[in-house]
Amino acid sequence: MENADLTLTIIGRVSSPLKTREECPRQGFENAPEAEIEIFPSFLEGLDGMEPGRDIFVFTWLHQADRSILKVRPRRNPDAQLKGVFATRSPVRPNPIGLHRVKLLEKDGGRLLVAPLEAVDGTPVIDIKPVITRNDEC
Amino acid sequence: MENADLTLTIIGRVSSPLKTREECPRQGFENAPEAEIEIFPSFLEGLDGMEPGRDIFVFTWLHQADRSILKVRPRRNPDAQLKGVFATRSPVRPNPIGLHRVKLLEKDGGRLLVAPLEAVDGTPVIDIKPVITRNDEC
Repeated sequence: MENADLTLTIIGRVSSPLKTREECPRQGFENAPEAEIEIFPSFLEGLDGMEPGRDIFVFTWLHQADRSILKVRPRRNPDAQLKGVFATRSPVRPNPIGLHRVKLLEKDGGRLLVAPLEAVDGTPVIDIKPVITRNDEC
Repeated sequence: MENADLTLTIIGRVSSPLKTREECPRQGFENAPEAEIEIFPSFLEGLDGMEPGRDIFVFTWLHQADRSILKVRPRRNPDAQLKGVFATRSPVRPNPIGLHRVKLLEKDGGRLLVAPLEAVDGTPVIDIKPVITRNDEC
Protein backbone atom coordinates (compact mmCIF):
# COMPACT_ATOMS: atom_id res chain seq x y z
CA MET A 1 0.00 0.00 0.00
CA GLU A 2 3.01 2.28 0.26
CA ASN A 3 2.91 5.30 -2.03
CA ALA A 4 6.40 4.95 -3.34
CA ASP A 5 6.45 8.42 -4.82
CA LEU A 6 8.02 10.71 -2.24
CA THR A 7 8.52 13.53 -4.73
CA LEU A 8 6.82 16.81 -3.89
CA THR A 9 4.79 18.71 -6.45
CA ILE A 10 5.18 22.49 -6.37
CA ILE A 11 1.67 24.01 -6.43
CA GLY A 12 2.64 27.69 -6.39
CA ARG A 13 5.18 30.33 -5.40
CA VAL A 14 5.61 33.12 -2.89
CA SER A 15 5.88 36.65 -4.27
CA SER A 16 7.29 38.86 -1.52
CA PRO A 17 9.15 42.13 -0.93
CA LEU A 18 11.69 39.98 0.98
CA LYS A 19 14.28 39.30 -1.72
CA THR A 20 17.06 37.67 0.32
CA ARG A 21 17.20 35.33 3.31
CA GLU A 22 19.02 38.02 5.26
CA GLU A 23 15.97 40.29 5.07
CA CYS A 24 13.61 37.62 6.40
CA PRO A 25 12.47 37.64 10.01
CA ARG A 26 12.69 34.21 11.64
CA GLN A 27 8.97 33.95 12.29
CA GLY A 28 5.92 35.54 10.72
CA PHE A 29 4.96 37.37 13.92
CA GLU A 30 8.30 39.20 13.90
CA ASN A 31 7.04 41.97 11.63
CA ALA A 32 6.91 39.89 8.48
CA PRO A 33 5.16 41.65 5.59
CA GLU A 34 2.14 40.86 3.46
CA ALA A 35 2.98 38.60 0.58
CA GLU A 36 1.25 37.10 -2.42
CA ILE A 37 1.01 33.44 -3.20
CA GLU A 38 0.45 32.52 -6.81
CA ILE A 39 -1.15 29.10 -7.19
CA PHE A 40 -0.42 27.57 -10.58
CA PRO A 41 -3.37 27.15 -13.02
CA SER A 42 -3.43 23.35 -12.82
CA PHE A 43 -4.18 23.51 -9.06
CA LEU A 44 -6.75 26.34 -9.08
CA GLU A 45 -9.71 24.02 -8.50
CA GLY A 46 -8.20 23.09 -5.14
CA LEU A 47 -8.86 26.66 -3.89
CA ASP A 48 -12.65 26.48 -4.27
CA GLY A 49 -14.35 27.39 -1.04
CA MET A 50 -11.38 29.19 0.55
CA GLU A 51 -12.72 32.32 2.23
CA PRO A 52 -10.76 35.54 2.90
CA GLY A 53 -10.60 36.34 6.61
CA ARG A 54 -9.77 32.78 7.61
CA ASP A 55 -6.46 31.67 9.10
CA ILE A 56 -4.65 29.14 6.98
CA PHE A 57 -1.45 27.12 7.17
CA VAL A 58 0.84 27.65 4.19
CA PHE A 59 3.43 24.91 3.67
CA THR A 60 6.56 25.90 1.79
CA TRP A 61 9.70 24.12 0.65
CA LEU A 62 12.65 26.09 2.04
CA HIS A 63 14.74 25.43 -1.00
CA GLN A 64 17.82 27.27 0.24
CA ALA A 65 18.17 25.24 3.45
CA ASP A 66 20.92 22.71 4.16
CA ARG A 67 19.32 19.26 4.48
CA SER A 68 22.36 17.49 5.93
CA ILE A 69 22.60 19.23 9.33
CA LEU A 70 20.90 17.71 12.41
CA LYS A 71 22.01 20.14 15.13
CA VAL A 72 21.96 23.93 15.25
CA ARG A 73 22.87 26.61 17.72
CA PRO A 74 19.83 28.51 19.00
CA ARG A 75 19.71 31.87 17.30
CA ARG A 76 20.95 35.01 18.97
CA ASN A 77 22.82 32.94 21.49
CA PRO A 78 26.18 31.81 20.15
CA ASP A 79 27.16 30.47 23.58
CA ALA A 80 24.21 28.10 23.84
CA GLN A 81 24.55 24.38 23.33
CA LEU A 82 23.74 22.80 20.02
CA LYS A 83 20.15 21.63 19.77
CA GLY A 84 18.52 19.00 17.56
CA VAL A 85 16.77 20.53 14.56
CA PHE A 86 13.46 18.81 15.47
CA ALA A 87 13.47 20.82 18.71
CA THR A 88 13.75 24.07 16.74
CA ARG A 89 11.98 25.90 13.91
CA SER A 90 15.22 26.28 11.98
CA PRO A 91 14.83 25.83 8.20
CA VAL A 92 17.81 23.45 8.44
CA ARG A 93 16.42 19.86 8.64
CA PRO A 94 16.21 16.70 6.52
CA ASN A 95 12.97 17.90 4.90
CA PRO A 96 13.00 21.71 4.86
CA ILE A 97 9.24 22.18 5.09
CA GLY A 98 8.17 25.65 6.21
CA LEU A 99 4.95 25.94 8.23
CA HIS A 100 3.41 29.43 8.22
CA ARG A 101 0.16 30.37 9.94
CA VAL A 102 -1.18 33.39 8.07
CA LYS A 103 -4.43 35.23 7.47
CA LEU A 104 -5.92 35.04 4.00
CA LEU A 105 -6.62 38.71 3.24
CA GLU A 106 -7.72 38.55 -0.39
CA LYS A 107 -8.29 35.90 -3.04
CA ASP A 108 -8.40 36.68 -6.73
CA GLY A 109 -8.30 33.55 -8.86
CA GLY A 110 -4.96 31.93 -8.07
CA ARG A 111 -3.54 35.00 -6.31
CA LEU A 112 -3.76 34.88 -2.54
CA LEU A 113 -2.79 37.88 -0.44
CA VAL A 114 -1.65 36.69 3.00
CA ALA A 115 0.05 38.09 6.10
CA PRO A 116 2.35 37.84 7.87
CA LEU A 117 4.72 35.69 5.79
CA GLU A 118 8.46 35.49 6.45
CA ALA A 119 9.36 33.39 3.37
CA VAL A 120 11.71 34.81 0.74
CA ASP A 121 10.48 35.79 -2.72
CA GLY A 122 10.26 32.76 -5.01
CA THR A 123 9.84 30.15 -2.28
CA PRO A 124 7.92 27.11 -3.57
CA VAL A 125 4.51 26.43 -1.99
CA ILE A 126 3.60 22.77 -1.50
CA ASP A 127 0.31 22.77 0.46
CA ILE A 128 -2.37 24.93 2.08
CA LYS A 129 -4.69 23.78 4.87
CA PRO A 130 -7.34 25.60 6.89
CA VAL A 131 -6.61 26.14 10.58
CA ILE A 132 -9.23 24.15 12.44
CA THR A 133 -10.16 23.76 16.05
CA ARG A 134 -12.50 21.49 17.92
CA ASN A 135 -15.26 24.06 17.42
CA ASP A 136 -14.43 24.77 13.83
CA GLU A 137 -15.07 21.51 12.12
CA CYS A 138 -14.48 21.26 8.39
CA MET B 1 19.79 28.82 -5.82
CA GLU B 2 16.91 26.38 -6.26
CA ASN B 3 17.24 23.13 -4.34
CA ALA B 4 16.35 20.85 -7.19
CA ASP B 5 15.83 17.87 -4.94
CA LEU B 6 12.13 17.73 -4.10
CA THR B 7 12.33 14.18 -2.77
CA LEU B 8 11.28 13.68 0.83
CA THR B 9 13.40 11.69 3.26
CA ILE B 10 11.48 9.46 5.67
CA ILE B 11 12.84 10.10 9.18
CA GLY B 12 10.65 7.64 11.11
CA ARG B 13 7.38 5.76 11.32
CA VAL B 14 4.16 5.79 13.31
CA SER B 15 3.45 2.73 15.42
CA SER B 16 -0.24 2.81 16.36
CA PRO B 17 -3.14 0.58 17.43
CA LEU B 18 -4.97 2.02 14.39
CA LYS B 19 -4.27 -0.62 11.76
CA THR B 20 -6.55 0.51 8.93
CA ARG B 21 -7.70 3.86 7.56
CA GLU B 22 -11.28 2.96 8.42
CA GLU B 23 -10.39 2.88 12.14
CA CYS B 24 -8.81 6.34 12.07
CA PRO B 25 -10.70 9.36 13.35
CA ARG B 26 -10.50 12.32 10.97
CA GLN B 27 -8.73 14.57 13.46
CA GLY B 28 -6.60 13.90 16.52
CA PHE B 29 -9.07 15.56 18.87
CA GLU B 30 -11.75 13.06 17.85
CA ASN B 31 -10.64 10.46 20.39
CA ALA B 32 -7.45 9.45 18.62
CA PRO B 33 -5.21 7.20 20.73
CA GLU B 34 -1.67 7.45 22.00
CA ALA B 35 0.86 6.32 19.44
CA GLU B 36 4.59 5.79 19.21
CA ILE B 37 6.85 7.39 16.71
CA GLU B 38 10.09 5.61 15.98
CA ILE B 39 12.75 7.95 14.64
CA PHE B 40 15.37 6.10 12.62
CA PRO B 41 18.93 5.91 14.08
CA SER B 42 20.50 8.20 11.48
CA PHE B 43 18.22 11.09 12.58
CA LEU B 44 18.47 10.62 16.36
CA GLU B 45 20.75 13.61 16.87
CA GLY B 46 17.96 15.84 15.59
CA LEU B 47 15.90 15.01 18.70
CA ASP B 48 18.39 16.50 21.18
CA GLY B 49 16.69 19.02 23.41
CA MET B 50 13.14 17.83 22.83
CA GLU B 51 11.35 17.85 26.17
CA PRO B 52 8.37 15.68 27.16
CA GLY B 53 5.33 17.76 28.09
CA ARG B 54 5.71 20.09 25.13
CA ASP B 55 3.28 20.32 22.24
CA ILE B 56 4.84 19.44 18.91
CA PHE B 57 3.77 19.30 15.28
CA VAL B 58 4.32 15.92 13.67
CA PHE B 59 4.41 15.94 9.88
CA THR B 60 3.51 12.69 8.15
CA TRP B 61 3.29 11.52 4.55
CA LEU B 62 -0.21 10.12 4.07
CA HIS B 63 1.00 7.43 1.76
CA GLN B 64 -2.41 5.93 1.04
CA ALA B 65 -3.96 9.17 -0.21
CA ASP B 66 -4.91 9.89 -3.82
CA ARG B 67 -2.73 12.76 -5.10
CA SER B 68 -4.69 13.44 -8.27
CA ILE B 69 -7.96 14.75 -6.79
CA LEU B 70 -8.49 18.53 -6.28
CA LYS B 71 -12.08 18.61 -5.00
CA VAL B 72 -13.78 16.58 -2.28
CA ARG B 73 -17.18 16.43 -0.69
CA PRO B 74 -17.17 17.62 2.92
CA ARG B 75 -17.39 14.59 5.16
CA ARG B 76 -20.64 13.46 6.72
CA ASN B 77 -22.55 15.57 4.26
CA PRO B 78 -23.01 13.77 0.95
CA ASP B 79 -25.38 16.50 -0.23
CA ALA B 80 -22.87 19.30 0.18
CA GLN B 81 -21.09 20.89 -2.75
CA LEU B 82 -17.60 19.80 -3.71
CA LYS B 83 -14.88 21.85 -2.05
CA GLY B 84 -11.27 22.48 -3.06
CA VAL B 85 -8.86 20.26 -1.13
CA PHE B 86 -6.86 23.31 0.07
CA ALA B 87 -10.01 24.47 1.89
CA THR B 88 -10.22 21.13 3.74
CA ARG B 89 -8.04 18.89 5.91
CA SER B 90 -8.69 15.89 3.66
CA PRO B 91 -5.64 13.65 3.14
CA VAL B 92 -6.46 13.86 -0.57
CA ARG B 93 -4.25 16.61 -2.10
CA PRO B 94 -1.26 16.99 -4.47
CA ASN B 95 1.18 16.58 -1.56
CA PRO B 96 -0.46 14.40 1.10
CA ILE B 97 1.32 15.93 4.09
CA GLY B 98 -0.38 15.26 7.42
CA LEU B 99 -0.08 17.92 10.13
CA HIS B 100 -0.71 16.64 13.66
CA ARG B 101 -0.50 18.74 16.79
CA VAL B 102 0.26 16.32 19.64
CA LYS B 103 1.71 16.30 23.12
CA LEU B 104 5.07 14.61 23.57
CA LEU B 105 4.38 12.33 26.56
CA GLU B 106 7.63 10.34 26.74
CA LYS B 107 10.94 10.20 24.94
CA ASP B 108 13.25 7.21 25.10
CA GLY B 109 16.03 7.42 22.54
CA GLY B 110 14.30 7.41 19.18
CA ARG B 111 10.93 6.32 20.58
CA LEU B 112 8.48 9.13 21.12
CA LEU B 113 5.15 8.52 22.83
CA VAL B 114 2.63 11.11 21.63
CA ALA B 115 -1.12 11.76 21.83
CA PRO B 116 -3.54 12.15 20.26
CA LEU B 117 -2.50 10.85 16.84
CA GLU B 118 -5.01 9.80 14.18
CA ALA B 119 -2.45 8.42 11.68
CA VAL B 120 -2.57 4.75 10.70
CA ASP B 121 0.13 2.29 11.82
CA GLY B 122 3.17 2.47 9.54
CA THR B 123 2.62 6.04 8.33
CA PRO B 124 5.95 7.66 7.37
CA VAL B 125 7.08 10.64 9.46
CA ILE B 126 8.84 13.44 7.59
CA ASP B 127 9.36 16.24 10.13
CA ILE B 128 8.80 17.36 13.73
CA LYS B 129 8.66 20.98 14.89
CA PRO B 130 7.97 22.54 18.27
CA VAL B 131 4.76 24.51 18.63
CA ILE B 132 5.81 28.09 19.30
CA THR B 133 3.98 31.25 20.12
CA ARG B 134 5.00 34.85 20.38
CA ASN B 135 5.81 34.28 24.06
CA ASP B 136 7.55 30.98 23.53
CA GLU B 137 10.61 31.83 21.52
CA CYS B 138 12.93 29.07 20.44
